[in-house]
Amino acid sequence: MKVCLAQINTTPGDFSGNLKKVQLGIDAASTAGADLVVFPELTLPGYLSQDLIYNPDFIARNLQALQEVVEMSVHCHPKLHIVIGYIGKNTGIGKPFTNLAGVINKGSLAHIYQKQLLPFYDVFDELRYFEPGNQLTMFNIGSVKVGLAICEDLWDLYNNFEYTKSPGEVLKNLGADLIINPSASPFHLGKDSHRNRVFSGQVNRFNLPVLYVNQVGVHTELIFDGSSRAVNNNGEVAIQLPDFESCIRTVEFGENGFIPGDGAVSLDTDPLPQLYKGLVFGIRDYFEKMGFKKAVIGASGGIDSALVQTLAVHALGAENVLAVMMPSRYSSEGSVSDAKKLSDNLGNSCIELPIQDIHHAYENTLEPYFKDLPEGLAEENLQARSRAVLLMGLSNKLGYILLNTSNKSEMAVGYSTLYGDLCGSLSVIGDVYKTQVYALANYINRNEEIIPFNIIEKEPSAELRPEQKDSDSLPPYPILDGILRMYIEEFKGADEIVIEGYDMHTVQRVLQLVNNSEYKRYQAPPILRVSAKAFGKGRIMPLVAKYP
Amino acid sequence: MKVCLAQINTTPGDFSGNLKKVQLGIDAASTAGADLVVFPELTLPGYLSQDLIYNPDFIARNLQALQEVVEMSVHCHPKLHIVIGYIGKNTGIGKPFTNLAGVINKGSLAHIYQKQLLPFYDVFDELRYFEPGNQLTMFNIGSVKVGLAICEDLWDLYNNFEYTKSPGEVLKNLGADLIINPSASPFHLGKDSHRNRVFSGQVNRFNLPVLYVNQVGVHTELIFDGSSRAVNNNGEVAIQLPDFESCIRTVEFGENGFIPGDGAVSLDTDPLPQLYKGLVFGIRDYFEKMGFKKAVIGASGGIDSALVQTLAVHALGAENVLAVMMPSRYSSEGSVSDAKKLSDNLGNSCIELPIQDIHHAYENTLEPYFKDLPEGLAEENLQARSRAVLLMGLSNKLGYILLNTSNKSEMAVGYSTLYGDLCGSLSVIGDVYKTQVYALANYINRNEEIIPFNIIEKEPSAELRPEQKDSDSLPPYPILDGILRMYIEEFKGADEIVIEGYDMHTVQRVLQLVNNSEYKRYQAPPILRVSAKAFGKGRIMPLVAKYP
Repeated sequence: MKVCLAQINTTPGDFSGNLKKVQLGIDAASTAGADLVVFPELTLPGYLSQDLIYNPDFIARNLQALQEVVEMSVHCHPKLHIVIGYIGKNTGIGKPFTNLAGVINKGSLAHIYQKQLLPFYDVFDELRYFEPGNQLTMFNIGSVKVGLAICEDLWDLYNNFEYTKSPGEVLKNLGADLIINPSASPFHLGKDSHRNRVFSGQVNRFNLPVLYVNQVGVHTELIFDGSSRAVNNNGEVAIQLPDFESCIRTVEFGENGFIPGDGAVSLDTDPLPQLYKGLVFGIRDYFEKMGFKKAVIGASGGIDSALVQTLAVHALGAENVLAVMMPSRYSSEGSVSDAKKLSDNLGNSCIELPIQDIHHAYENTLEPYFKDLPEGLAEENLQARSRAVLLMGLSNKLGYILLNTSNKSEMAVGYSTLYGDLCGSLSVIGDVYKTQVYALANYINRNEEIIPFNIIEKEPSAELRPEQKDSDSLPPYPILDGILRMYIEEFKGADEIVIEGYDMHTVQRVLQLVNNSEYKRYQAPPILRVSAKAFGKGRIMPLVAKYP
Repeated sequence: MKVCLAQINTTPGDFSGNLKKVQLGIDAASTAGADLVVFPELTLPGYLSQDLIYNPDFIARNLQALQEVVEMSVHCHPKLHIVIGYIGKNTGIGKPFTNLAGVINKGSLAHIYQKQLLPFYDVFDELRYFEPGNQLTMFNIGSVKVGLAICEDLWDLYNNFEYTKSPGEVLKNLGADLIINPSASPFHLGKDSHRNRVFSGQVNRFNLPVLYVNQVGVHTELIFDGSSRAVNNNGEVAIQLPDFESCIRTVEFGENGFIPGDGAVSLDTDPLPQLYKGLVFGIRDYFEKMGFKKAVIGASGGIDSALVQTLAVHALGAENVLAVMMPSRYSSEGSVSDAKKLSDNLGNSCIELPIQDIHHAYENTLEPYFKDLPEGLAEENLQARSRAVLLMGLSNKLGYILLNTSNKSEMAVGYSTLYGDLCGSLSVIGDVYKTQVYALANYINRNEEIIPFNIIEKEPSAELRPEQKDSDSLPPYPILDGILRMYIEEFKGADEIVIEGYDMHTVQRVLQLVNNSEYKRYQAPPILRVSAKAFGKGRIMPLVAKYP
């Protein structure tokens, strides 16, 4: 039989838009003569609809959309089975909704499967909404017994805790020939090798081929990367769809499993190209779904804003990006010329708005209250905030969307000004450590100098006071990032980090800085998630706390 | 026997501070000759520790604190049974932790109960961390059989969905004489009458007296109000502890249940005094726990800032509050004089920082890019943001903490400037509708004019352009708030709201405004929660969405 993987890009709540993409998938599957087309998890409402689900007509519209898919099935080839994700009402005791996959054929909803393993950790909160199912669904296509398992249902052994049951194992015991796995599995660096381990683990355990169909697209902080695949019971990947783009493709399933086709894509598994592609796609899809077109960036001449500007130009086109240089009395000559050179290289517009007059006006106004006190953070923050007000002014007036340029290392230790450089509609690199920022810049420059070498090579500085350098306040970035990774991503404590070779005093200071800047991150923009533990939705910290 | 209710105020992660309060409770219980002292849910780690729990030594320190309570029990009266909340490690399959209550007596941990019903809706996410228990704990004190049920365990029928089991019912069937219910049950307006319904419902169902011990204090957005009580099986409240303050009190339990003592407190059930007390306590406890002392407020001469300033003075003392008037070219004479009069009435310091020069400097700097375009939102926002930069400058320089003064009606419809009047460390009235703001102002003025009548009576205006009035852009507040309540708190759709007598066009516009301003609320400060559905943690909305 022929099986079609419909790796589509849905938007939460956009029932009519999502239906159009479903129609494309059904048409493509029909044209290819497929027996089965599989769409991602929660296809019709979109995966991350969160509390929109409580809206009184949300479920009704989602069921109406399901009905429209049933209608579509009347008009396509009668042998086609459509597997589509939607939300059901729970009529029994428990949470009000269910996470379902329906099997539609010849104008009827033939089978309904209710997801059994509902993730509730990190960025996932499915148990907030859904009651888990407790029954399996298997259906026949010709002589092939197809079993359904939605996303987490197949990840029972591969998370930070174990589940009490394994839907895959039960399917195997019931004699399934194939497991199909509609998914919404967000990207992070290393996720793909994690997936490879999971799926090769699963085919080993169950001795069954698995068809994994993941969605693609940005849902607020989360980037879904697609990378759908058909895996045979010997671990062979018969077909793999591209990452970070919509794709509909058909594969043949025979007696010995999936037959490798010529459409197989070999994905970059190097972290840098993946990170680069993920971020560019993240900006592009976020903008498209939010109805944004143009971006504005505060171009300091530093590497963070240079990277974000480059990613934005690659995502949105140079004609849609405006770089704004806002030199102060502490800005070096080089900062402006480096920033200009970057915009020249990229071909985007670039303007200069000096902040001296504004800075003076603030100082004069505040002078009666600041006069006796030594200069310090307050004066530095005035500059960062003056710039944010200018950028937001341009945004409000001209329709540019402000991109935030803070990196994860800065966000972690609070080396950033709330309502200053922490402003923006989207944090592009808030989940990218400073050392990764350098690596990405070099990756972008691998063939030619796009980001001026001078920007990469100069010593990092916020330029908010004379002769300021990042290294005045922070450990060198390789050390800082090493500590941060262990603390944030690996949940290690000070003692465990010191064992890895770091200085206790430095470690304690860094951990303190992270804990003391929760209040800044509380008000930060949404951050494109590219690591297994990003700031934001997946890391919920109290502000009122006294720890450690 | 004698039973002591230890309604204490804990801080997440503050093991040593929490232990000191436990010691006070044990001492008081010992002195009163009590047989039993009951502390609130998750006493030792504090209720809302959220992802701090993943810190590698968090659980160890929490178990160490438990050990110290065991030590304390060696030194107190041997008949005293101590019921204390803490976190356990789950050694079986499932989530990594457990929400426990331990019963300690004479130097040993005699019984451990694992909470069975774990809330995960609105502001609650206990299933993110805890594996539910499935066994009951009953222990004897003399001839009295005491059953344990932690918070939600007794709310099985009283939420937006049903649980599959009822720990209270099983305790009754096993012959318990008394149910004790250590709790962390956050305040919202009307919660107390909800509790009354729950507890009278429970004593009816089980025909058993219930002892409810709730914590008090602010945990980030949540205000826990205490109001602990002992309820007899005829529904009689034998003792009720005060709201919004720590309190330790002992009650006699005899053959016919609790014997009403003279310590019973009759609580205000009027919403206005409750709201007033809750907000004042909210500011005070938030400041105390965050180590803050002084607050700064942008005093516009409008009612929102006047209310917040008054609440801040009542919470922190006039000597700790600074009001900053920042008139622009559009500010009326009255605004400054009204704001001055308020500070005179309250006795706090008040300074004036005109923003004209700053405003001019921005306009001049932006003129090359703004010149041909009509004046509008961008110019208005420049003023709001200039003020925020001044306030944050004072905050950074002088150590004042900025209080946000946006009300819930404005926050709902986005009638506020991101990085402008949306700034602040804490949103005091972000869960208080504008109509409630007026009611609170009048309540505060019930005996004398504290908030100048002129501030209450004048037409609301942001004064960001000539002759501006709120009513230019928004429906009258009673209508706006009526619609918002139904949409946000009652989850009603447009059709259902129109049936209540509102104009369809107005309703649709308001709903659209609410949906379109999610991006502003995403970056808003923490909001003190005083309603059953506040913006923030309990209302999780996607930014990327297309709905309705």
